[in-house]
Amino acid sequence: MASVFGQNFKVSVFGQSHAPGIGVVVDGLPAGFAPDMERLRAFMRRRQPGQNLLGTQRREADMFDVLSGLVDGRLCGAPLCMFIKNIDKRSSDYKGLEQTPRPGHSDYPASVKYRGYGDAAGGGHFSGRLTAPLCMAGGMMMQLLEEDGIRIGAHIQSVGEAQDTPFDPLAPQMDALSKDYLTVLDEAAGERMAQLIDNARLELDSVGGIIECAVTGLPVGLGQPMFDGIENVLSKAIFGIPAIRGIEFGSGFESTKMRGSEHNDPFVFDEQGKVVTASNRHGGVLGGLATGMPLIFRVAVKPTASIFLSQQTVNLNTGKNAELSLKGRHDPCIVPRAVPVVEAVAALAIYDLYLDYLKEKNYGAE
Amino acid sequence: MASVFGQNFKVSVFGQSHAPGIGVVVDGLPAGFAPDMERLRAFMRRRQPGQNLLGTQRREADMFDVLSGLVDGRLCGAPLCMFIKNIDKRSSDYKGLEQTPRPGHSDYPASVKYRGYGDAAGGGHFSGRLTAPLCMAGGMMMQLLEEDGIRIGAHIQSVGEAQDTPFDPLAPQMDALSKDYLTVLDEAAGERMAQLIDNARLELDSVGGIIECAVTGLPVGLGQPMFDGIENVLSKAIFGIPAIRGIEFGSGFESTKMRGSEHNDPFVFDEQGKVVTASNRHGGVLGGLATGMPLIFRVAVKPTASIFLSQQTVNLNTGKNAELSLKGRHDPCIVPRAVPVVEAVAALAIYDLYLDYLKEKNYGAE
Amino acid sequence: MASVFGQNFKVSVFGQSHAPGIGVVVDGLPAGFAPDMERLRAFMRRRQPGQNLLGTQRREADMFDVLSGLVDGRLCGAPLCMFIKNIDKRSSDYKGLEQTPRPGHSDYPASVKYRGYGDAAGGGHFSGRLTAPLCMAGGMMMQLLEEDGIRIGAHIQSVGEAQDTPFDPLAPQMDALSKDYLTVLDEAAGERMAQLIDNARLELDSVGGIIECAVTGLPVGLGQPMFDGIENVLSKAIFGIPAIRGIEFGSGFESTKMRGSEHNDPFVFDEQGKVVTASNRHGGVLGGLATGMPLIFRVAVKPTASIFLSQQTVNLNTGKNAELSLKGRHDPCIVPRAVPVVEAVAALAIYDLYLDYLKEKNYGAE
Amino acid sequence: MASVFGQNFKVSVFGQSHAPGIGVVVDGLPAGFAPDMERLRAFMRRRQPGQNLLGTQRREADMFDVLSGLVDGRLCGAPLCMFIKNIDKRSSDYKGLEQTPRPGHSDYPASVKYRGYGDAAGGGHFSGRLTAPLCMAGGMMMQLLEEDGIRIGAHIQSVGEAQDTPFDPLAPQMDALSKDYLTVLDEAAGERMAQLIDNARLELDSVGGIIECAVTGLPVGLGQPMFDGIENVLSKAIFGIPAIRGIEFGSGFESTKMRGSEHNDPFVFDEQGKVVTASNRHGGVLGGLATGMPLIFRVAVKPTASIFLSQQTVNLNTGKNAELSLKGRHDPCIVPRAVPVVEAVAALAIYDLYLDYLKEKNYGAE
Repeated sequence: MASVFGQNFKVSVFGQSHAPGIGVVVDGLPAGFAPDMERLRAFMRRRQPGQNLLGTQRREADMFDVLSGLVDGRLCGAPLCMFIKNIDKRSSDYKGLEQTPRPGHSDYPASVKYRGYGDAAGGGHFSGRLTAPLCMAGGMMMQLLEEDGIRIGAHIQSVGEAQDTPFDPLAPQMDALSKDYLTVLDEAAGERMAQLIDNARLELDSVGGIIECAVTGLPVGLGQPMFDGIENVLSKAIFGIPAIRGIEFGSGFESTKMRGSEHNDPFVFDEQGKVVTASNRHGGVLGGLATGMPLIFRVAVKPTASIFLSQQTVNLNTGKNAELSLKGRHDPCIVPRAVPVVEAVAALAIYDLYLDYLKEKNYGAE
Repeated sequence: MASVFGQNFKVSVFGQSHAPGIGVVVDGLPAGFAPDMERLRAFMRRRQPGQNLLGTQRREADMFDVLSGLVDGRLCGAPLCMFIKNIDKRSSDYKGLEQTPRPGHSDYPASVKYRGYGDAAGGGHFSGRLTAPLCMAGGMMMQLLEEDGIRIGAHIQSVGEAQDTPFDPLAPQMDALSKDYLTVLDEAAGERMAQLIDNARLELDSVGGIIECAVTGLPVGLGQPMFDGIENVLSKAIFGIPAIRGIEFGSGFESTKMRGSEHNDPFVFDEQGKVVTASNRHGGVLGGLATGMPLIFRVAVKPTASIFLSQQTVNLNTGKNAELSLKGRHDPCIVPRAVPVVEAVAALAIYDLYLDYLKEKNYGAE
Repeated sequence: MASVFGQNFKVSVFGQSHAPGIGVVVDGLPAGFAPDMERLRAFMRRRQPGQNLLGTQRREADMFDVLSGLVDGRLCGAPLCMFIKNIDKRSSDYKGLEQTPRPGHSDYPASVKYRGYGDAAGGGHFSGRLTAPLCMAGGMMMQLLEEDGIRIGAHIQSVGEAQDTPFDPLAPQMDALSKDYLTVLDEAAGERMAQLIDNARLELDSVGGIIECAVTGLPVGLGQPMFDGIENVLSKAIFGIPAIRGIEFGSGFESTKMRGSEHNDPFVFDEQGKVVTASNRHGGVLGGLATGMPLIFRVAVKPTASIFLSQQTVNLNTGKNAELSLKGRHDPCIVPRAVPVVEAVAALAIYDLYLDYLKEKNYGAE
Repeated sequence: MASVFGQNFKVSVFGQSHAPGIGVVVDGLPAGFAPDMERLRAFMRRRQPGQNLLGTQRREADMFDVLSGLVDGRLCGAPLCMFIKNIDKRSSDYKGLEQTPRPGHSDYPASVKYRGYGDAAGGGHFSGRLTAPLCMAGGMMMQLLEEDGIRIGAHIQSVGEAQDTPFDPLAPQMDALSKDYLTVLDEAAGERMAQLIDNARLELDSVGGIIECAVTGLPVGLGQPMFDGIENVLSKAIFGIPAIRGIEFGSGFESTKMRGSEHNDPFVFDEQGKVVTASNRHGGVLGGLATGMPLIFRVAVKPTASIFLSQQTVNLNTGKNAELSLKGRHDPCIVPRAVPVVEAVAALAIYDLYLDYLKEKNYGAE
């Protein structure tokens, strides 16, 4: 249902870019867990706007209040509500956009869907700003998953043609990720990316990229057949992030050019006698189920639709074609700020499947 | 929940490759609709096994019985159950597979998940054979959607390196699709693909490919924000098909190399005064909502995991590495038979969103 | 969604009274469990029609086939499909009922809902016959629950004015229940009930009654707050049984006449140091959560709507009022055969909540 | 999932009695609707605490803020979040309750469920205070339903032995309901009830009662078979209100003492040629579907568990039985304030089914 996610819990996201605020309610978290709120705030800062010239200039501290669900620093089992007040709104920037929909944005189909009553200011509920509540909910779940040895980490695989070193699919180098605005393995790649973004900015344009994400520590067998496999649940969640245009697992689209004998990963016993695969082209998931190898997936992020170059659109009032010059504050590339969002949203999906796993673990365990 | 799909209806798939049969229950279809059963059977024949040497030699007529929900040729509003008896089983082919999991298959994680009690014969519930019930349910929904002007069509975009002409994203050539085993726009491409598949077969190997699918006639605004956008619902469904490794919409992963000014599709009024986009790199969906342009997506199908070349695996009983030589009957390339499956599963997703649309259409319509 | 139940599993019921058959698909059962099929068949016989003159004369052996999900006598983790062929149909008995809806039946609203295309024969999907699939699914879950010490038992509390001894709310006498057609604690009460039913039958009329059900062995804390408390989930399931008109927990409607000081059950430590209540007016559930005391609820079953006395109705074709004389074979009282159905449907609800409990049990248990 | 309700929309309730506040997110409301906020506030005042001596003395203005989803007084299609700050908290009243659970409350099973980490203050998320968000969400839906001619009204049927005139089941007298604190048809009955409540209060005790609710204007056929009939969905919702112990439809438990010939309501054509029933013992619902007659149901409300008389309980710390003397502010009877809550929660259920109806209305309507 639109802005609600989860089978074993429910994450309900609310808010619009220019509403009083944005937030999230999470029902179904375990009582007793003491989240590290400082760490959650640090995580939120990774997607925070207004950090530098490579991102939007909208300045929001994005500091959230906990409205319910936390008692003396611990989850109490009741729904957790976290809320961020919107502060630096400039609705005037969006005057007139209702009649001249922005290319590449939901403005036009949303105006038809909501029969003109949608909240157009700043993209309303479709705004990238709504990824902040996703980070609050998902960041919390990342902490819960880590308690049980499951880690999630992502980096920028590419911005335009600039490529980062890919993760080692057998041992993703999560601890080697840079702590900068541009999360990469190879700092030089990061610099090339920054250059590309800055160039796009100066030319009033934008640029896209690919984010690669790894999840380690998944228990073998996590996931469900058919419609609730890891890929199904993850992709349903991930496309909840604006601007995502594709997702692939393991060797993904590249696998279509391989022979089966090249693509199949042989099973072997490792030194501890554990079953592993010698390579990881399957990306940690077979038949929707975790194999115990690192889960690897990549998502395509389109170039930011909001650009300052003049664009062609229609004027829905006059019925004539029109020229559009955007105002407002926009990221010339949303890839850097989307990295923690991908991690957080992956956590929503993985944690949901993990709760299934906890349930099944007790079958016959009495 | 695993083998159940749908918010506005429920499709429940059951069966295993070597169980008495396979089938599907669909709850929530409109009473009064008279499905064209001949057409549904013809649709089923497109994925039927045993058609020629390019596919598996398992021979199943795949003719289904209707166990409930149909009265005098019309849906009666009660759950529709359709059932196919399994006939040509050779479980002996699968003897011993429990202890030597096939590379690229769910055997290993499934054996852990089900603690050794899973149905290993023929892949059990993970078998590609379970796409037959998906075709029954989705084929029915394709007919329902067509009643309202929504059409779904797919073709083989590529097998290995052999490429078909892509769909015209502004006007996908659905009527020009070949009616052969290999559904393509360009017959010569089809022949190259057949050659590649046959080569793989002769070399006891397999090959993968890409399927491109188009949906036309979607009303503007169909879809929901955030977690129930077209991409979310479609990808959740599509990954229910075995061997899918990726999905992308519009220009997909290619968009990551474009500038915003290259990627954004300008809005224009067409000759009838309808809002359209001059190009269709967005693939018919913005913010999760249909724009009225053709929906275009592509899925990556990995090379068949079951190959006759000897492979390395583990013996779970002996704890030693092992050599595996598969018996059984397998497709050297599942891409051709997956084309109708992609169409059918797309129909599940689209029809679910369409029922949301019907509901919303009545808002304020009193 | 209509005929689908469950959060942690999905039970999908299909079939109509005069369709080829009736059945159920259950997705989400634990692999490895070896159901006692003889016991399940014995359970099914408790609701079987055609047993004696107190019930319908339709003769159905109600022996089911397992179409999927069971391998070598054990659940394999794939959806379990069980199916019963309809044999003793007499659709001629239902000729003309489409235009003269039976009082007390769904005929009229169903004909409007399905715009005349519903399956009227024998009540179609609304038939009491659809309780057989409920018994198959629920009977299986009763066995699963018993493995973990949770037992469900029901008896006829009353037929008309004839009352059975109520359960001792602190220790429901499940082992003392008669094994006869009329499940009671007090055999003399059973005879009075049989007399009342037979009188109604001879007078071409019908009679209703109350079923009392107990569930023992529930772990303290099972259930969820607000909308997924034991009462919510149980009542949602129980009203899936035709002819149920009310449900109450513990002292139920009687509690409305008590003072708080009379109704509240004091907590005490029992001899083993376990927290119990000295009385059980709360019926084992507080705030939606199990207290560890026996869960007690009662359901009201209306008199069978199908009676042979002439009744007044409308003729939808002629637009005139009409006289209706029913043919067919009907129970003069469905209460006796509804007893196992109440048990089975209670098992659906309780097992769903129990899976939540299994999940939560692992919080912080790593 | 616990505090989330709805298939066609999602209502997510959050907050605890002594948290920063309580609130609700509603996803799936129609864009463009202009709710009458004054009327919603008036509706909220009917359940507001601190009105007089018959209710709790906790004083909360219960004025809510809209945090999202409303633009220029109209719903914008994005999730609607409404929030009430908690003001008059006295957590000191609840000191020590963790170890001495209150009889009749969720304290004990909740402490086990949440392993001691639950929010015990004021009942936490189990508090009757959480019915305020239910009233916000449901009150909004009552306005939406009224737009389409569906009205919901409830009155106090009884407090202890004091009875109000029941609704005329053929034409519930909604317009004749008193506007006082005690919503009744017969003012004299209201006075007797007030007296009973005041007596209970003076004796440090409490008293329960029955609420009767009617829904008129339901289209014939609304509801779904089996698990999503009107009774199923309504009862699942209604048991979300604390202190409800039973629900019955039409003649309910009384029907179990009737013969079929007495209970069946004859169908007749009314003067406008519409199909109606001459009586309404079925309470407007057959087979889970609306018949077009007024829907009538009654709910049993137990006497308030929080009484000031000394009670027996256990001390979980010392392991000894204990005496409990409650502090705090409690309603000697919650029935009066529960009347709007029953209406609101009924609206949640009915509106959900109504959205199904809107969807189905468009079948074959193309």
